[in-house]
Amino acid sequence: MLTINTERLLRLLDNLAEIGATAAGGVSRPALSEADMKARAWLKEQAEFYGLNYREDSAGNLSVILPAEDANAKTLLVGSHLDTVPNGGRYDGALGVLAAFEALLTLKEAYRKLPYHLECISFTDEEGTLVGLLGSSALCGTLTAEDLTAPRGGRERLLAGLKRANLTEEGLLNAHRDPATLAAFLELHIEQGTRLEEANIDIGVVTSIVGIRSYWIEYLGDAAHAGTTPMDKRADAFWGAAAFTQQARDMVMERFYPGVINIGAVELAPGAFNIVPARARLALEFRHGSETELNAMWAELQSLARDIAQVYNLSVQITHSGSIPAAPLNDGVIAAIEHAADTLGLSHTRLMSFAGHDTQNLSRITPAAMLFVPSVGGISHNPREYTRARDVVNGANVVLHTLLKLAQA
Amino acid sequence: MLTINTERLLRLLDNLAEIGATAAGGVSRPALSEADMKARAWLKEQAEFYGLNYREDSAGNLSVILPAEDANAKTLLVGSHLDTVPNGGRYDGALGVLAAFEALLTLKEAYRKLPYHLECISFTDEEGTLVGLLGSSALCGTLTAEDLTAPRGGRERLLAGLKRANLTEEGLLNAHRDPATLAAFLELHIEQGTRLEEANIDIGVVTSIVGIRSYWIEYLGDAAHAGTTPMDKRADAFWGAAAFTQQARDMVMERFYPGVINIGAVELAPGAFNIVPARARLALEFRHGSETELNAMWAELQSLARDIAQVYNLSVQITHSGSIPAAPLNDGVIAAIEHAADTLGLSHTRLMSFAGHDTQNLSRITPAAMLFVPSVGGISHNPREYTRARDVVNGANVVLHTLLKLAQA
Repeated sequence: MLTINTERLLRLLDNLAEIGATAAGGVSRPALSEADMKARAWLKEQAEFYGLNYREDSAGNLSVILPAEDANAKTLLVGSHLDTVPNGGRYDGALGVLAAFEALLTLKEAYRKLPYHLECISFTDEEGTLVGLLGSSALCGTLTAEDLTAPRGGRERLLAGLKRANLTEEGLLNAHRDPATLAAFLELHIEQGTRLEEANIDIGVVTSIVGIRSYWIEYLGDAAHAGTTPMDKRADAFWGAAAFTQQARDMVMERFYPGVINIGAVELAPGAFNIVPARARLALEFRHGSETELNAMWAELQSLARDIAQVYNLSVQITHSGSIPAAPLNDGVIAAIEHAADTLGLSHTRLMSFAGHDTQNLSRITPAAMLFVPSVGGISHNPREYTRARDVVNGANVVLHTLLKLAQA
Repeated sequence: MLTINTERLLRLLDNLAEIGATAAGGVSRPALSEADMKARAWLKEQAEFYGLNYREDSAGNLSVILPAEDANAKTLLVGSHLDTVPNGGRYDGALGVLAAFEALLTLKEAYRKLPYHLECISFTDEEGTLVGLLGSSALCGTLTAEDLTAPRGGRERLLAGLKRANLTEEGLLNAHRDPATLAAFLELHIEQGTRLEEANIDIGVVTSIVGIRSYWIEYLGDAAHAGTTPMDKRADAFWGAAAFTQQARDMVMERFYPGVINIGAVELAPGAFNIVPARARLALEFRHGSETELNAMWAELQSLARDIAQVYNLSVQITHSGSIPAAPLNDGVIAAIEHAADTLGLSHTRLMSFAGHDTQNLSRITPAAMLFVPSVGGISHNPREYTRARDVVNGANVVLHTLLKLAQA
């Protein structure tokens, strides 16, 4: 049975981890930083060294290509991203790119003839130190000029990064590819959670990438003297906010598992020991793999927010902050991953991805799916991020055999 | 029956309200501001005009005196304060000073011989735009040099105010009076709440000024990815903070009435939509008129804070922020106020003061009590602060007859 070159893959991972390496053993390689530019140049060198084609699109997405014999064949994309968060780890993104690279090399060296061009791709700025899922949005044609005007990393940093990479906003906005030329997309990633580790399972097959909705929930009451105003005469905005936090948590845990909810920030006004809060603003985010469930969650949460306002003699204002739709993944690609794992004798389970990935963009234009390998302790975005060598190799072999399975389709 | 000169008292109140008057109909007369200096000069003029003695101590406390025949008699203090909060009202403080002034005038004009020197006093900076209860702390000997190093209004403003009034820090720290020279202290004030208005009662007899305790309650959990961390694996510090807020409120309302609790500020860290809060810091304050009850409240609150930490897999750190002890008032002076109200045919009820007043300082060195008259709508520290003329007059007459009753003792 064909398998990847374990030694080479682990060496490629080690070599890449030296680019942007931090003293703490992590990696700082933010998108289009000097370190990222070095990693990009390194990938090109590797492609050339091993005799694979190399290409870069106008969004800075890097491709290493093993062409099919038929020049008109569709392209099977497989990859992830080279960029990291500041002070991140060695595996997030890097594993997916290098496993794909190694799978292509293995197929090239085995002289396998596939009916698709195989393209190992690294997307620009997955992590969002500039924009977030930037390269895959550009490739999928969903990036807008507006996304670039006030990016989360700041406009100046974006422009500096584009200049460094010899890219332009116009190029970003014109990087979309024709879906008719694509056969499928596959991404290997570390889990960034503990479900696989705890269940002692080799491979997680991702059925959906969760949608994320965020809102500001603002309770409004009356500022009052915290001494002279009797408790039963108060309209304390924080009482509403605290009750909402508790009841929303309980409701989501009881009725929307495995969906999750977070209240990550709170602002009270006026905000003094001796003044009853007039205003309490909660930063609410919730996630689920199904849009139907997200709609149901939101209906329940709104109703809860309003019921609580009545109980505490408050009003409530709800402001939309952002939405990312849930991305159900492709049954055919999911089945190919499971078939590959079975072929290799690896255990697997289906799960949702509760973090965002480039796969969610690709899933909107081509059959796409992704697989996870275990993260030790679930630690990620941290120098202590670690995935055991055997799981690295398992993941790459599943990528290889998934490509082979998809090639039969 | 002897009663005060209604017309004169209302005119004095109107005249004083012109000093520092705001366009909105309120009064801005912060301690030792230019407006406060004008009000002080005005009070001295009134004393001289009406043939009463005038004195100012080294803390800037102003006294208008009707001396007893016996120069060695003790002094019966009665008063409040001329300063206001910025953009405050016409009655808070001013009523207590002018009712005392009018009572002295009435007794003088009636040629009543009392066995005490009667001293109408206005304390410096009751409101705390500089230090808070400054003049009464100085008079009672509890002011320390430390209180002046980082005052709540800022060191610069304090020094500027002292200079304007020709006062010194040394003078403040040496303004204490010998308790053996004092007979009692009495203060009339507006209620700044709605209990009297709602019960349609003329006079509130204050039995205690609440103690205030403030603490930071900080829950500590683990920052985590708000998507990939399952709900049941989180140590969300805000879950603890929200549960504590709710349960502490319910506990105080059920078991410590009329005690009150407030959580006036909250800080979450890291503080983002997509990060589970690692840290939630609550600004907790609670008040009660009895130190025994304050101790019991605090024992229950600490126990609750720790129980909740366990439930949510958090730790909790509690930091003391400040304490003002409860000030139970003097039974003899309370009885004299009630006797005076009965004499005048006015309804009265006992209550606690949930706000701080100079009386709490005086109560530590001499028999002291205070009375409230209704505030319309409970509004205070606001240009709309209002007390009806009949309640102003009732209050002043109760002051007059309380002095007469105390003089019999």
